Amino acid sequence: MPRPFTMIRRVQFAETDAAGILHFANYFRIMEETEHAFWRSMGQSIMTPKDGKHVGWPRVATECEYFEPARFEDEIELTFVVTRVGDQSYSFEVRFDCRGKTIAIAKTTAVCCLCGDGQVCKTPIPDAIRSELVAAMATVPN
Amino acid sequence: MPRPFTMIRRVQFAETDAAGILHFANYFRIMEETEHAFWRSMGQSIMTPKDGKHVGWPRVATECEYFEPARFEDEIELTFVVTRVGDQSYSFEVRFDCRGKTIAIAKTTAVCCLCGDGQVCKTPIPDAIRSELVAAMATVPN
Amino acid sequence: MPRPFTMIRRVQFAETDAAGILHFANYFRIMEETEHAFWRSMGQSIMTPKDGKHVGWPRVATECEYFEPARFEDEIELTFVVTRVGDQSYSFEVRFDCRGKTIAIAKTTAVCCLCGDGQVCKTPIPDAIRSELVAAMATVPN
Amino acid sequence: MPRPFTMIRRVQFAETDAAGILHFANYFRIMEETEHAFWRSMGQSIMTPKDGKHVGWPRVATECEYFEPARFEDEIELTFVVTRVGDQSYSFEVRFDCRGKTIAIAKTTAVCCLCGDGQVCKTPIPDAIRSELVAAMATVPN
Repeated sequence: MPRPFTMIRRVQFAETDAAGILHFANYFRIMEETEHAFWRSMGQSIMTPKDGKHVGWPRVATECEYFEPARFEDEIELTFVVTRVGDQSYSFEVRFDCRGKTIAIAKTTAVCCLCGDGQVCKTPIPDAIRSELVAAMATVPN
Repeated sequence: MPRPFTMIRRVQFAETDAAGILHFANYFRIMEETEHAFWRSMGQSIMTPKDGKHVGWPRVATECEYFEPARFEDEIELTFVVTRVGDQSYSFEVRFDCRGKTIAIAKTTAVCCLCGDGQVCKTPIPDAIRSELVAAMATVPN
Repeated sequence: MPRPFTMIRRVQFAETDAAGILHFANYFRIMEETEHAFWRSMGQSIMTPKDGKHVGWPRVATECEYFEPARFEDEIELTFVVTRVGDQSYSFEVRFDCRGKTIAIAKTTAVCCLCGDGQVCKTPIPDAIRSELVAAMATVPN
Repeated sequence: MPRPFTMIRRVQFAETDAAGILHFANYFRIMEETEHAFWRSMGQSIMTPKDGKHVGWPRVATECEYFEPARFEDEIELTFVVTRVGDQSYSFEVRFDCRGKTIAIAKTTAVCCLCGDGQVCKTPIPDAIRSELVAAMATVPN
């Protein structure tokens, strides 16, 4: 079975808060860094110029469940899985593992859009990207 | 009918991203700023010292739906509503309105904990806070 | 004597770090928020569209000295003073006061630029803005 | 000649702003990430527990000069050099290189402190760390 994209990311000091832990909002930044690294692993960028505008992926919904806190300098293993590929949107999950435990799971749905001149229009996912996303949906995490 | 806590918060430049809009992860920071301002409006702080430790409210789940983007210097009206008060946790929603439209709704469940010495233990919500939270549940947004 | 622009800004939880204090990098964000609020007080925006591009003010140098830490929910009084107005750039200082003490002073030099199509070109400061900046240079802080 | 500590760090999307570039305040976060990675390369952590308190390194002054912008997904080569080691403080520089050019130089002075119970007291740099910092002062960047 093909394995999903994974990467290691250390918790940085500026990401902690006065409770001594990784601030809950920063999980969404780390989730996004994982998504963008996955795109680069496909040879793609999440934000690409097109006809004087750019194709981007605004989020329509995102969520995170937190099971255990993470602390400064913790190494987090991030596992990226595509969970749905539609005509104009896709959904993914990022699992956060630390010291052998799953400490958080974040989920997002993003829409493929052509952006420019202050306007944002939904557009079909380009075929080359779509096939990569579908392939990533078939992976099986450990 | 009592009205819920509201405040106005402007989108800052450092909160925007290269797509020219308020970055999706920053909605969670603004949601939290609204929650903490609500607590101050009760005469409370979300983080209080107790017996050499502190009482805090780690999040167990959070989510946001996005309907329209926000941009640099947009004024966002934030409406805070408590949706559930349990023995050791509570849930709330923050509605983001901008130029007469609801642009996002964020939701969170947080747990009352005694934190210190690297440990986090659930603890019952103090009575004085509980009664305030219950009162805030009875408000009706516009 | 005219007084400089001031505002009050509370330290937010997400801006603190595991040392329990306002993270040093966040002073620069607060400095910038003060600058942009000063511009709005002039009836201006720091970032304005022009001929399909925009006029912006990239920073060429910035610095901050820290005298005392700030903590979650501290109210900081911010005083904005223009210290130099050139043909294409200006310099300013923001003083951070908390509980009657100056806790930090931040300084920046920014350059007026026409930005667009991936290019950034220095441009003279528009006259209307220049005269406002010069007026702000003549203020005297308490 | 010994070479200084270097690392590669990619510009993340959440670090860009509506001008399409790495926001100037985020250079300080990247500077700090480089410092902390240098400490780990010495087998040390910048924040260590001691007698129920912790040893930390609050900043007293920091600055950055910006020569060229950086953009989303740019790879930045970071070079860390210690420039001064005192009894209770040290100074360092981080050089930001991108596409063969130096795009920014950041400098900081930090003080060794024993922190806890809401108090921060200067303390001499421990000998083991001091000797490492002195060694790092003798490196010569390319």
